[in-house]
Amino acid sequence: MSTPSELLDQIGDIGTDHGRGGYSRHVFQPVELELREWFTAAATERGLTVSGDHNGNLWAWWGEPGPNALVTGSHLDSVPGGGAFDGPLGVASALAAVDELRASGFTPNRPLALVVFAEEEGGRFGVPCLGSRLLTGSIDADHARRLRDPDGVSLAEAAAYAGLDPAALGADERLLGNLGCFIELHVEQGRGLIDQSAAVGVASSILAHGRWRFRFTGEGNHAGATLLEDRKDPMLPAARFVLAAREAARAVPGARATVGRIVPNPGGTNVIASSADVWLDARASTAEDTRAMLAEIEAAAADAATSEGCTLNVSEESYSDTVYFDTGVRDELVRTLGDVPVLPTGAGHDAGILAARIPTGMLFVRNPTGISHAPEEFAERDDCTAGARALATVLREQAGG
Amino acid sequence: MSTPSELLDQIGDIGTDHGRGGYSRHVFQPVELELREWFTAAATERGLTVSGDHNGNLWAWWGEPGPNALVTGSHLDSVPGGGAFDGPLGVASALAAVDELRASGFTPNRPLALVVFAEEEGGRFGVPCLGSRLLTGSIDADHARRLRDPDGVSLAEAAAYAGLDPAALGADERLLGNLGCFIELHVEQGRGLIDQSAAVGVASSILAHGRWRFRFTGEGNHAGATLLEDRKDPMLPAARFVLAAREAARAVPGARATVGRIVPNPGGTNVIASSADVWLDARASTAEDTRAMLAEIEAAAADAATSEGCTLNVSEESYSDTVYFDTGVRDELVRTLGDVPVLPTGAGHDAGILAARIPTGMLFVRNPTGISHAPEEFAERDDCTAGARALATVLREQAGG
Repeated sequence: MSTPSELLDQIGDIGTDHGRGGYSRHVFQPVELELREWFTAAATERGLTVSGDHNGNLWAWWGEPGPNALVTGSHLDSVPGGGAFDGPLGVASALAAVDELRASGFTPNRPLALVVFAEEEGGRFGVPCLGSRLLTGSIDADHARRLRDPDGVSLAEAAAYAGLDPAALGADERLLGNLGCFIELHVEQGRGLIDQSAAVGVASSILAHGRWRFRFTGEGNHAGATLLEDRKDPMLPAARFVLAAREAARAVPGARATVGRIVPNPGGTNVIASSADVWLDARASTAEDTRAMLAEIEAAAADAATSEGCTLNVSEESYSDTVYFDTGVRDELVRTLGDVPVLPTGAGHDAGILAARIPTGMLFVRNPTGISHAPEEFAERDDCTAGARALATVLREQAGG
Repeated sequence: MSTPSELLDQIGDIGTDHGRGGYSRHVFQPVELELREWFTAAATERGLTVSGDHNGNLWAWWGEPGPNALVTGSHLDSVPGGGAFDGPLGVASALAAVDELRASGFTPNRPLALVVFAEEEGGRFGVPCLGSRLLTGSIDADHARRLRDPDGVSLAEAAAYAGLDPAALGADERLLGNLGCFIELHVEQGRGLIDQSAAVGVASSILAHGRWRFRFTGEGNHAGATLLEDRKDPMLPAARFVLAAREAARAVPGARATVGRIVPNPGGTNVIASSADVWLDARASTAEDTRAMLAEIEAAAADAATSEGCTLNVSEESYSDTVYFDTGVRDELVRTLGDVPVLPTGAGHDAGILAARIPTGMLFVRNPTGISHAPEEFAERDDCTAGARALATVLREQAGG
C-alpha cells in the first residue's frame, strides 16, 4: 500500500530537465514511454488490466470493462521544465486510492477504471488535452495527425513510433459509451485552498481559454549593416503585442493573457529576424470576454505589424469554452467529503473535455505556494495523502456495494 | 580554373537549413567539417599545403610558410539560416584568384596563404570572430574554452570533437609573427556599391559593435491559474527592452540596435516564463556612441524589470571598438584597382580583429538587394568574378616579382 508521494518518488528521476530545471516529459518520447511502463506495471501489480486506446490514452480496469464505468486519473506528461505534481499526482492518487480500497476489502459494484490521458499539456504538439480531445472527437483527427512538434515530427509519426496506428486516431464512441462518470484529482494551480486552509477542494468551473499563434513576418537582414529606416523587423511588433496582451487582460476582471513562448526565425544574435512566432494563452470567465479580449489584442498586434512594414497571421491552436462541472457530481463530492471548499480554476484539464460528454468532477489538492508549471510546484505529503483518501472515499461512495 | 560562383556551387548542398531556409553551418559540427574538407581538397588540388592552427583556423600555403606572408580568405560558417555568400565568397574568391595567378604563370615573391577562420559569426558559441580572436589573443583562452552552445556543449568539447587539443587554444604569436598583410574579400552587407554602380569597393572602417545578453528573471508559474497581480513575468520587461533598444538607436545618427534572438525559459505556451534571455546587437560609429546607447538601453531595461518585480543581469558577450583599416593598405587597394568606392560597414569581420595586429584591408563585392544574414543574400556571378579578378590583381601587386 503506497501513498501518492511514495509513488511520485518512484518516477522522480524520469524526465528531469537539467537545462530548464523540473521535468520535461513529452508525449510519445522515450521519457514519457518510460512513465507509461511505470504506470502499467503499477496498475498490473494491483490486479488491474491495462490497455491502451486508439488515441494513446492508457486504461487500467478493475474488473471487466463495461457500461457506466467510474473513471479516475489524470496525465503523466508535463510542460517544458514543469513540476512533479501537475498530472502525476492525479495518477498516483488513483493508484493509492485503489490500494486503500483493496486493503479494506472493497469490491466496486460497477466497472472502475484508472486513466492516463496523453499530451494533456500540449507541450509537444501545441494542443492541450489532445488525448481526451481525440477520444471525444472534439478535435478533427486529420487535423491532429498533421500537428507537428518543434522538430517537425508529425503526431502521426510520433504515434507510430509509440506503437499506435495513426489511421485509428479519433473519436472512440464505443469506449466513451462505457464511461459513466469521471473524477480527476489535480494539484491546485492557485492559492484558493491556502486561503481557505483546506487540504482538498472541489472544482466548480474552468475559465474559457485558448491558444493562438501570432506570426509576424518582416524581412531578414544583417543586424549591423542594415539602416534602421530600411528595416522590417518583426521583433518590434512582437514586443508591442506582448505588452498589448497584458493591457487587454488588465481591462477584463479575472482575465489572463500570457506570452511564454516566442521563436524568432532564424534566431541569430546578429540577424534581423525574418519572422517571429509568438504564442498567446488567453483566458477569461466567459467565451464573450475571452473573444473580446482576443479581438483587442489582435487589433493592437495588426497595428503594430503594419507600422513596422510587417504582416501578421493569427491561427487558433485550441479553444475551450467555459466549463461548468456537473452540479450533481459536484454536490455529491462536497457532501461525501463534508464541507470542503468549491472553487473555480484558470487551468484547463482533461476533465474539462470529458465534461462535455459525461458527468465529470474534479478534486484539488492544496499547493502551498500556488506555483505550477514550474520546478517549484509543490504539495505537502500529508495533503497528497489526504487527497488520495478523499478520492478513495468518493470512489467507494460512487461504486459502493 | 574556376570562378567563385562555380566554387560556391560545389558547396551549395552542404548545410542547407530546411526549417529556416538558407544555410546553417556552425563551427565544428559535421556540416562545417565537411566544408573544411572541401576547402582542403580544393586548396590541395591547386598545389597549396593545408594545415590547421591551434584555434581551428585553416591555412593553405603557396610555397613555404614564412615571414611577411600575404594572406587572403574569410570564413565558411554561417549565421542560423544565413546566405550562401557571407564568408564562402571570400574563400571561393581566394581560390579563384590563385587559379588566375597560376594560369598566368605568376609565382609570389613572398609567402602567400589562404585562410579560413573559425566561427566568424558566433552562430554556435555566441562570440563572433572567435577563431581570429583566439589567434590574436584578443579573447582569453580559458573564457573561450568555457563558452557553451545552446545544447550546453563547451567550446573545449567541440574543439576536441573536431580533433583539436582544447588546451592549445589561444594566442599564436609564432603564426601571427609570420603574417605581413591580410586582405579579406566579402559580399557587401548594405547597398553602398549599388548606389555607386560599382561591382567592387574597398572598406574604410567597421562600426564599433558588440553583443550583450540581457537576462530578465521573474517567477515561473501557470499561465491560466496565476492572477495578473501575482505575476513576475520576465517577458514584459523583455518586450519593453526590445522597444527601448530601437528608440535608443534612433536617437544616435547611424547607430543600430537589434534583438534577433530571445529565449524564454522554459518556453511553454501555457507557462509564465521564469526567465527570458534576450540578446542585443548594438553598433555605432564610435565607441562612445555605442557605450552611451548601451547605457540608455540598460537603464530602460532595468526600470522595466523593476516595475514587473523582475531582476536584470547584463553580460557582455563580445565588444569591438571602431576599426579604421590601415590607410596604406586601403590607398594601395584603391590605386591598384583604379577609382573604386571606399565605404564603411556596419558588419564585423575577422579583418577587423586582424587589423589590430597587422596591416589589413577589405574588398567588398556588390549585393544587389543589400540583404545579408538571410537566405535572400545574393551577388551576381559577374560581380563575383570581378571581385576575384580584383583580388588576384591585388595579390599580384603585393606579391609581384
